[in-house]
Amino acid sequence: MNDIFTARGSMLIAGVTVNGSTVDIAIDEEGMIAGIGKDARKTIDADIIIDGSDRVAIPGLVNTHTHAAMTLLRGYADDMPLAEWLSEKIWPLEAHLSGDDVYWGTKLACLEMIKSGTVAFNDMYFFMERAADAVDEMGLRATLAYGFIDLGMEEKRAAEIKATEALVAHVKARKNPRIQAAVGPHSVYTVSPEGLSWCAEFAEEQGIAVHVHLSETEKEVTDCVAEFGKRPAVHLDECGCLTPRTVAAHCCWLDEAECRLLGERGVSASHNPASNMKLAVNRAMPYHWLKASGANVCLGTDGCASNNSLDLLEEMKFAALLQKFAWNSQTLLPAGEAVAMATSAGARALGTGPGTLTAGAPADIVLLDARAACNIPLHNTDSNTVYACNGGAVMTVLCQGRVLMHERTVPGEEEIVREAAAAAQALVGRAREA
Amino acid sequence: MNDIFTARGSMLIAGVTVNGSTVDIAIDEEGMIAGIGKDARKTIDADIIIDGSDRVAIPGLVNTHTHAAMTLLRGYADDMPLAEWLSEKIWPLEAHLSGDDVYWGTKLACLEMIKSGTVAFNDMYFFMERAADAVDEMGLRATLAYGFIDLGMEEKRAAEIKATEALVAHVKARKNPRIQAAVGPHSVYTVSPEGLSWCAEFAEEQGIAVHVHLSETEKEVTDCVAEFGKRPAVHLDECGCLTPRTVAAHCCWLDEAECRLLGERGVSASHNPASNMKLAVNRAMPYHWLKASGANVCLGTDGCASNNSLDLLEEMKFAALLQKFAWNSQTLLPAGEAVAMATSAGARALGTGPGTLTAGAPADIVLLDARAACNIPLHNTDSNTVYACNGGAVMTVLCQGRVLMHERTVPGEEEIVREAAAAAQALVGRAREA
Repeated sequence: MNDIFTARGSMLIAGVTVNGSTVDIAIDEEGMIAGIGKDARKTIDADIIIDGSDRVAIPGLVNTHTHAAMTLLRGYADDMPLAEWLSEKIWPLEAHLSGDDVYWGTKLACLEMIKSGTVAFNDMYFFMERAADAVDEMGLRATLAYGFIDLGMEEKRAAEIKATEALVAHVKARKNPRIQAAVGPHSVYTVSPEGLSWCAEFAEEQGIAVHVHLSETEKEVTDCVAEFGKRPAVHLDECGCLTPRTVAAHCCWLDEAECRLLGERGVSASHNPASNMKLAVNRAMPYHWLKASGANVCLGTDGCASNNSLDLLEEMKFAALLQKFAWNSQTLLPAGEAVAMATSAGARALGTGPGTLTAGAPADIVLLDARAACNIPLHNTDSNTVYACNGGAVMTVLCQGRVLMHERTVPGEEEIVREAAAAAQALVGRAREA
Repeated sequence: MNDIFTARGSMLIAGVTVNGSTVDIAIDEEGMIAGIGKDARKTIDADIIIDGSDRVAIPGLVNTHTHAAMTLLRGYADDMPLAEWLSEKIWPLEAHLSGDDVYWGTKLACLEMIKSGTVAFNDMYFFMERAADAVDEMGLRATLAYGFIDLGMEEKRAAEIKATEALVAHVKARKNPRIQAAVGPHSVYTVSPEGLSWCAEFAEEQGIAVHVHLSETEKEVTDCVAEFGKRPAVHLDECGCLTPRTVAAHCCWLDEAECRLLGERGVSASHNPASNMKLAVNRAMPYHWLKASGANVCLGTDGCASNNSLDLLEEMKFAALLQKFAWNSQTLLPAGEAVAMATSAGARALGTGPGTLTAGAPADIVLLDARAACNIPLHNTDSNTVYACNGGAVMTVLCQGRVLMHERTVPGEEEIVREAAAAAQALVGRAREA
């Protein structure tokens, strides 16, 4: 079975269920879907054949907001008031993070994401060169941003500019088509207008994305209005940060006019329902306004300290259920739209293709177990995918035609688990000693 | 490995992690925990040894509100207005349900519950004699109630009384200590005061539980006040239906006085967060009031049409997150309390023991994969169990010392999946022809 992880060539997924029909999926040597349908096997001379019977194929999932290495903080502290949780638990531990920690934490995150069907993620954190090493080795796609925080201080801003420029140069020099750099202004409350404007201009100049937190809490909105006389989305827009290359995470407290603004600018809005619920932000993203505005609404898990998992199959259920509950509508965000958020909308946000199972798209494909209880009966694939299945039903994952997991085996899993666990333990030890 | 499913005798789970410590769990020939700790292996001469290394042990989970056979309707219809969903989709399909359907639907539900760590459930549906057959064969515990609905009609009431009496007699005659009967008055809006009073008296006479829906929607409250001049919990109480043997499901719209009443009566209140979110009931159970009142707050998934899974590990996360979000508190329902809801509180509700890993308790034990990403790092078992893991991390399940699943294998799984899928397809076919 190990052969399948190293083999290169054309591939056929034979007799797999897609939207209730049994089809073949043909993948060419460049990892693109050459054909899909009953006759797709004729389009290639397959070097590798994967048996698709007892499997349901869906597009690879895209996680549009993560702080991947925070896997090391999973379960370190929960159920506390936000300010206390950050100042007494999360920040003191993060102060002791090393580049090696970020490497192993990101490896663990990649492992967890692959195990639950994610093929691409949008990350913001520190020591991102080491995150790039992890992504490179694990074989999925990522857009990596250094978290730019100047707190209004000119000296700090100069250092953040340097760190951002260094990461972008590093990622470009790697020339790995799966890894992109982005600019990561943290938020309107941690970055000055000068910092935000620099980020916008640098992203434009480099032709890369902007990854920013937006309107996560009510306090962010009231503070922004008090300091700048305008709401956060308007403030970001005036600094040039809202473009079709922008991914804005959370978007809980946007008002209707801000939603229209995001739609007009073609922004991608990343919904993070589990994190928003756990941190009790007290308002769910206004999906109905964003959808009406034409904004690209996608899905993210946020970091592992505020979720505490990276399972997008689970996150789709949280999204579809939270929208219904919070906005009091039994019909809001139906299953098919939740799947689109986690696939085609995510792929559009990160520029990784159409995010669909169609000829000409990259072969980013997830095979779910059709014999798992969550897929019995199979009245409706979208419904089972969103409401019944979780990451445990994912059997095989392909990214650009390369097999990252097969029959739930990911190469190197034991070492990642061992080293990440050790890194987390050592990190807590260092923080205690300090 | 098949031996482990049929072997009888004393058992040792050797070197397993419980709350961060490595211990042994000794189980005697009657399936009770004989000892737990570093020296527990001395208490028995084990016939069977299960390797507990790389495993985290937690108490078996208890699902206190299900309609198990509705697994056959999983994904049949979703994302519709409630009245239309029920009248156009769910009820027409249910009208064609046979006893065989309930048997295979319940077998599928038992399989799904075992796979996700559930050892006992509280069920209300039709053809419950066939549900009892399924539970008997699958080896877990269940409390089974016939859903009593008289719609205020005397003739219908007489038929429901007959059906209830027949089920109770049937279950008692089986003499299976894992299976109990309960009386199942559906709700205040489907059962007359006379029907409710009969149910209360019959349950008292038989010494069995009452399983009822309570305050799921605002409409239920306003209709009850309009018809009877009192809120649903008060109405149920005046009919004698609130006792320490009562499990009341949902409890979303209880006011503070009703919560105090449930506490005074010693009622078990079953929280069903995923169902409540999916059906947009617009208010979360007031957990803080119920907790303060001393009511026994436990956890349930509801039926598969309104969830659509039976995974209590996932449901714990929904509960802990929904309470925080809906009641705007970052500290409400912390992980440890969520675990207690799904274990000790559930066991108390169904009378299946303490629901803890302690000497003298029934050996209802779940072994989670300690090497799964969701358990790395293991800073805190409760946190990982609630916030990070789902049913996919469950490796081994014991009920009264009997192994129901080992290394994710459940005996007979293939037949259940095949027959339940066929039953669901045939059911839809019959409904279409009609």
